[in-house]
Amino acid sequence: MIDLYTWKTPNGRKVPIALEELGLEYRVHPVDIGADAQFAPGFLAISPNNKIPAIVDDDGPGGEVAIFESGAILTYLAEKTGALLPGAGAARYVALQWLHWQIGGLGPMLGQLGFFAVRSKEKAPLAVDRFTDEANRLLDVLERRLADSRYLGGDDYGIADIAAYPWMQAAGTMLAEALSAPFERRPATARWLEEVGARPAVRKGMRVLED
Amino acid sequence: MIDLYTWKTPNGRKVPIALEELGLEYRVHPVDIGADAQFAPGFLAISPNNKIPAIVDDDGPGGEVAIFESGAILTYLAEKTGALLPGAGAARYVALQWLHWQIGGLGPMLGQLGFFAVRSKEKAPLAVDRFTDEANRLLDVLERRLADSRYLGGDDYGIADIAAYPWMQAAGTMLAEALSAPFERRPATARWLEEVGARPAVRKGMRVLED
Repeated sequence: MIDLYTWKTPNGRKVPIALEELGLEYRVHPVDIGADAQFAPGFLAISPNNKIPAIVDDDGPGGEVAIFESGAILTYLAEKTGALLPGAGAARYVALQWLHWQIGGLGPMLGQLGFFAVRSKEKAPLAVDRFTDEANRLLDVLERRLADSRYLGGDDYGIADIAAYPWMQAAGTMLAEALSAPFERRPATARWLEEVGARPAVRKGMRVLED
Repeated sequence: MIDLYTWKTPNGRKVPIALEELGLEYRVHPVDIGADAQFAPGFLAISPNNKIPAIVDDDGPGGEVAIFESGAILTYLAEKTGALLPGAGAARYVALQWLHWQIGGLGPMLGQLGFFAVRSKEKAPLAVDRFTDEANRLLDVLERRLADSRYLGGDDYGIADIAAYPWMQAAGTMLAEALSAPFERRPATARWLEEVGARPAVRKGMRVLED
């Protein structure tokens, strides 16, 4: 059994999507970041960075294992099951490079855009402009990729798509105004969003803690 | 032979450190981001995100392979050689979680701090405060980790250390004023910086394109 510590945020939805895709048994523990629950001492022991998501797998390699950081958890679940990420070959590294692109670029930059353009009452135009420009640049990178390739990693759906989907869903909802209707002029991304979003595991994972 | 496309930045120094540690043959191609060389069409074919570092390995799985994103390149080089990252077991995922922590947190947040607190002529106090606070929080996370563990991944030096070192070196130089002498009050981090920084491969990789 896998214990999943998460919340209703883009990063928090990646892992339940993967768990649903892989058919793994899990229990969800809410960590309400609106109430600072990520700073509780018990959670720090599981997630030293005080962030969700984190998992504890009692059937890990050599016994119980606790893992934080969504990209590491997705890689762990893929390697545990032999699914959603090629085990070797060039396709493995194509998928990993797009996973890292989401972890180091798309996620942090859309996250900052959400803060400066949407959540913050005080406005800093320098920051709003910077993160709007960078988010649009990243969305153009994604559009070029998805015009060439069915999925982020290539022909097969996998953890790079799972990592990017909840953030792109946020781009089209919470961030849509800041990004000026981002998918109208990005048809390949719109096609991918529809296809990935229709998967039963994605629909279920996106609703974690909401049903 | 590995062709390395890089520049004199924290992200650009990670891969030459790993190549030096692993004793792999490589050729360095400068991509002067100060002159926008990362936007040249030839580079886009190698690095669709228009960022350094990127590599082309003519001895990849199944032939020539091009990879971008520093975290994916470090993982590739570790798996190609069977070094700097455990191939299986809990220790593998401990190392990967700290690698992802650098890729998704430490790097982007120190990078934004560098822009808002150091490089930008226009000042946005909201952004300076936000990234100063987040950078200090991340440095406290690292300090706690390194007070418990010799290296980021555990007992063994590896790709998580290589990913974090150039950013922490920047924290102590370019960002030292913004972070108020960060290592004076973080002794475990100071110990790690000295130990990692003394490695011949690290000294050589940090000087990429400077000799």
